[in-house]
Amino acid sequence: MIGTVTLNLALDVTYAVDELVVGGSHRVTEVRQRAGGKGVNVARVAATLGHPVLALGFVGGLTGELVAGELFDAGLTALLTPIAGETRRTVAVVNGSDGDATIFNEPGPTVSDDEWRAFHDRMPWGRLEVLACSGSLPPGLPADAYAEIAVRARHHDVLSVVDAGGEALLAAARAGAVVRANAAELREALGEVDVPDGARHLVGLGATAAVITDGARGMVAASNKGVWRADPVEQVAGNPTGAGDACTAVVAAAVARSAEPDWSEVLARAVAASAAAVLTPVAGDLDLAAYRRWQPQVAVREL
Amino acid sequence: MIGTVTLNLALDVTYAVDELVVGGSHRVTEVRQRAGGKGVNVARVAATLGHPVLALGFVGGLTGELVAGELFDAGLTALLTPIAGETRRTVAVVNGSDGDATIFNEPGPTVSDDEWRAFHDRMPWGRLEVLACSGSLPPGLPADAYAEIAVRARHHDVLSVVDAGGEALLAAARAGAVVRANAAELREALGEVDVPDGARHLVGLGATAAVITDGARGMVAASNKGVWRADPVEQVAGNPTGAGDACTAVVAAAVARSAEPDWSEVLARAVAASAAAVLTPVAGDLDLAAYRRWQPQVAVREL
Repeated sequence: MIGTVTLNLALDVTYAVDELVVGGSHRVTEVRQRAGGKGVNVARVAATLGHPVLALGFVGGLTGELVAGELFDAGLTALLTPIAGETRRTVAVVNGSDGDATIFNEPGPTVSDDEWRAFHDRMPWGRLEVLACSGSLPPGLPADAYAEIAVRARHHDVLSVVDAGGEALLAAARAGAVVRANAAELREALGEVDVPDGARHLVGLGATAAVITDGARGMVAASNKGVWRADPVEQVAGNPTGAGDACTAVVAAAVARSAEPDWSEVLARAVAASAAAVLTPVAGDLDLAAYRRWQPQVAVREL
Repeated sequence: MIGTVTLNLALDVTYAVDELVVGGSHRVTEVRQRAGGKGVNVARVAATLGHPVLALGFVGGLTGELVAGELFDAGLTALLTPIAGETRRTVAVVNGSDGDATIFNEPGPTVSDDEWRAFHDRMPWGRLEVLACSGSLPPGLPADAYAEIAVRARHHDVLSVVDAGGEALLAAARAGAVVRANAAELREALGEVDVPDGARHLVGLGATAAVITDGARGMVAASNKGVWRADPVEQVAGNPTGAGDACTAVVAAAVARSAEPDWSEVLARAVAASAAAVLTPVAGDLDLAAYRRWQPQVAVREL
């Protein structure tokens, strides 16, 4: 079972309006809401790819109830730790004219030390094959919260996949996790660096593997067995939000099957899944037919 | 007791952002939420002026629970009819730079015939001195819903104050209510017309009285005893949202004391209350000291 960790769960609210005008008053023509946070996108994609998933995170207040209810409605098993604070919302206002989204992110609720301990205490280690951690941290948690999870996971022989940037990325690498980042996050952590060199550096710090998405240049993976680059599939137009999460889901699924997967194969699947996620308008969704069509076409070479 | 009717109750959410940019992603620096809808503003102002108030309306879902909870926290007694739909939200995004608000109004939940009947059935007529109806109608209700309430109220010897525009204004006048509108709403109902003539016309249709706010030109009241105009107080800068609701609250309070109040006196209080509402940043609030200071200064003359 793939455990997906979303420490800053949200209720993602989408408003459709004809045309957003600053200072104007708008009739919302359609309201959609669903559970959000990068970890939820990972859970949705992993479930779409046929893997048993357990969504982990914090929920509080009536908004937390809505998030829990929506995860249930989406068929995602969840083990949620209650908190005193109110789960945050995000509001995306989408223009009818051009589909452009304007986003408002509420600050997350503060998580107390006791709530953080309760989160660890209820972790069902025996049922987990891998833990995928992604997304922002709510106030109150240590900056190296993902590294802490990765260390605890190793004590229970569970490998972690951590999607993070900056210091959190370095801490997760040192904790032995499989780390996932985009090129900007990699450079935020390591300074100006070539993507393959940066990936190698993360493995040198202790990461089991590093998978770096490099935008239009494809993806790079490094482990102690080597470094690989995968070219992107054909030019794909759509919504890039959630493409990185689709990559994380594929990496987590691969690690669930084997602690030492064939990274060139994983890269091919990750590139196909990311592109198939771009095709769908909503983050967390994946065009399964496109994924299956593209996967054998991805060119991967060792560097 | 003043019953305030808000058929399209809302949870008013206010987001503070540094600067709203269309297509941008924004960190919300502060989230406030409270019960909203014009009738709630009327209830808040009436309570601030010291009158016992009963807030009436529909609530549904978790958002409805938040609205009910906030009314309770605000010290407003409420008698709310449960509905199957989810209570709507409004989101106001306020710029830190200039205080400008951009508003998003969710559509209201549909109210069924059974729910509309349940609303009437639980009306505590024996405890009401006046009923103040204001704000938009949710889908599912007849366009003359306020007139229907006013007719039922008269059967129980309760007078209604109806704040409405267009056809709903004319229907309320024919139902014998005290009608409240602004000059634009009056003209929407009657076509191009002088405000005093329009007010007289509404009384001719059957309205007990008509009170029309005329922006910077003050207010006009008409009854079968005459027509009066009140000049505005000194130029007031602030938030005009809720000024009309403060006027409705004063009119309702006057009618609660006497079915035939001295309309020149009521006009003076209404002008002072509207200006005192403009001084406060949030609709439904009122600067009580300014209200008391301005009230004796308002000039009212019979036309």
